[in-house]
Amino acid sequence: MAPGAVDIHTHIVPASFPAYAGRHANVRWPQMAAGSDCRHCNVMIAGKVFRTVSDECWSIERRLEAMVASRVARQILSPMPELLSYWLEPEDALALGRHINDTIADMIAEGGGRFAGLGTVPLQDPDLATRELERLMHSGKFCGVEIGTNVNGVAIGDARFESFFQAAEELGAAIFVHALHPAGMDRLVGPAGLAALVAFPCETAFAIASLITGGILTRRPKLKIAFSHGGGVFGLVLPRLMYGWKTIPELGEHIRQSPAEQVRKLFYDTLVYDTATLAFLIERFGVTQLCVGTDHPFLIQEPDPVGAIEALGLSASECDLLLFGNASRFLGERS
Amino acid sequence: MAPGAVDIHTHIVPASFPAYAGRHANVRWPQMAAGSDCRHCNVMIAGKVFRTVSDECWSIERRLEAMVASRVARQILSPMPELLSYWLEPEDALALGRHINDTIADMIAEGGGRFAGLGTVPLQDPDLATRELERLMHSGKFCGVEIGTNVNGVAIGDARFESFFQAAEELGAAIFVHALHPAGMDRLVGPAGLAALVAFPCETAFAIASLITGGILTRRPKLKIAFSHGGGVFGLVLPRLMYGWKTIPELGEHIRQSPAEQVRKLFYDTLVYDTATLAFLIERFGVTQLCVGTDHPFLIQEPDPVGAIEALGLSASECDLLLFGNASRFLGERS
Repeated sequence: MAPGAVDIHTHIVPASFPAYAGRHANVRWPQMAAGSDCRHCNVMIAGKVFRTVSDECWSIERRLEAMVASRVARQILSPMPELLSYWLEPEDALALGRHINDTIADMIAEGGGRFAGLGTVPLQDPDLATRELERLMHSGKFCGVEIGTNVNGVAIGDARFESFFQAAEELGAAIFVHALHPAGMDRLVGPAGLAALVAFPCETAFAIASLITGGILTRRPKLKIAFSHGGGVFGLVLPRLMYGWKTIPELGEHIRQSPAEQVRKLFYDTLVYDTATLAFLIERFGVTQLCVGTDHPFLIQEPDPVGAIEALGLSASECDLLLFGNASRFLGERS
Repeated sequence: MAPGAVDIHTHIVPASFPAYAGRHANVRWPQMAAGSDCRHCNVMIAGKVFRTVSDECWSIERRLEAMVASRVARQILSPMPELLSYWLEPEDALALGRHINDTIADMIAEGGGRFAGLGTVPLQDPDLATRELERLMHSGKFCGVEIGTNVNGVAIGDARFESFFQAAEELGAAIFVHALHPAGMDRLVGPAGLAALVAFPCETAFAIASLITGGILTRRPKLKIAFSHGGGVFGLVLPRLMYGWKTIPELGEHIRQSPAEQVRKLFYDTLVYDTATLAFLIERFGVTQLCVGTDHPFLIQEPDPVGAIEALGLSASECDLLLFGNASRFLGERS
């Protein structure tokens, strides 16, 4: 029997957080507060409700029920992105991250082979992040880590993060990049939810572009890195970047390999909610580069990720790549 | 004989600028300086070379030569976007804009029917911008105006600009929106040219989104508005915005008409440098909504805009829509 769908884009929130035990004032350390019913809690950050979340965030039993409904065989667990906490002092972020990573490891152990994990590292201190990545990978419990598209406004393609990506490449760690605190917030007109709808896709494109234009992808050719939401809007940035790369001598010298070739080595999730869009991304990035992603258990999760792939009318072997084969390569597992 | 291609995205720079005669200090008022040869000049802003431009920017004779080479029958002239000068005091921007608008009117008169024009208005003062728009439209010399995607960081969908759009709708003025001073500059890693390549497409998407989420497009249904660079990356923002609109009650109440329907009433240029991308945009926005655009005479201009359309394999009547029919509707001309 073929393995079932592997969902690389799912999030967890621990059922509780330890009290802050560090030495700084006014720290954006998360706390849980009771929600309106027994199955929901409020994640409090800096005294405000950041998000109301359901028990699917921490309950393996509840997740397994949801996975039956969505025909997902395995979930890759990663933190709710706001928990990446790049805005904390590094030692505080490390302490919080350890709690989150321990939670993920416990959920994997409880899940009987149905879960794998992407941890968190304090990327605001690349050396500390590298040491935590080494610890996670040597534990044998993690496939890699989730990181944000930027660290306090600095895109991940900046030179300061290259030592971290070098370590990830050497360790064989899978890096899942999720949109976080996006650029362009000052351009939004309307409800707060627009940040995730409009600014996230652009933010992800900025991160991909920065890895290309910063040279990290050419210098770290074995890096396994995946991007949320189908790479955001990068699929439409690419032809313009390609034209500039071909016609502007300064860019041609600066970017050593065709951007179109570079992006066909990256991974992307399928979380685009639209068949024609998914087909466009497969054409642009390659049928070997997309993996199921749902954003489970959050509000705008894709309820039918397998159906979205079936609707493409691909061959059975291509479907299998999208459902689990590409994810196995990204995660460094044998399929 | 069928009319030839109409290029809605071309820019002009006056051959010279008047000396600043206003009352403010440290004004970013442009000046021309000699270039390295007789056919180039440097546009100086705040004492620095903003861009080296060729005589195609102001010479009708040189433009007509280029149009033969690119098979463009008519050009719509609009200012180099940096000249929109929203960062000047309104009365200074009006004075500079009058010089630019007069230059465009002179070029149209000199061009023997081969040119039409989009002027500039000081949108940092919406009332003043409305009065200048009225003057331009009543002159009979302009189809409308070019505006930026934002005015000093405020997206054009903000409520403060609605009175201007209302006037544009009532006057039948065509509005061409061009990326300007984009969001996300702090996310770029590499040469300065990346702003136009990576940040412009996102910036344009933010502008389109703001007009939808700000409600302007539903309240001004007859507004004729076109976006540069194929609408930037909005084609890939749309499915995510649609999913949010369908699933998040707050957004469903806030946005009164389907975003997918709203964007099929906007116009876009074809400046995307890639056949598959152009085909994707036609599918997404409609074959009735795209118009030739080249960015002539700037560095990353599309050299073969007609060939780009021919490569799509469309019917003759669909080709004619893209080459001139849609532009006629956008510009309010009889085709």
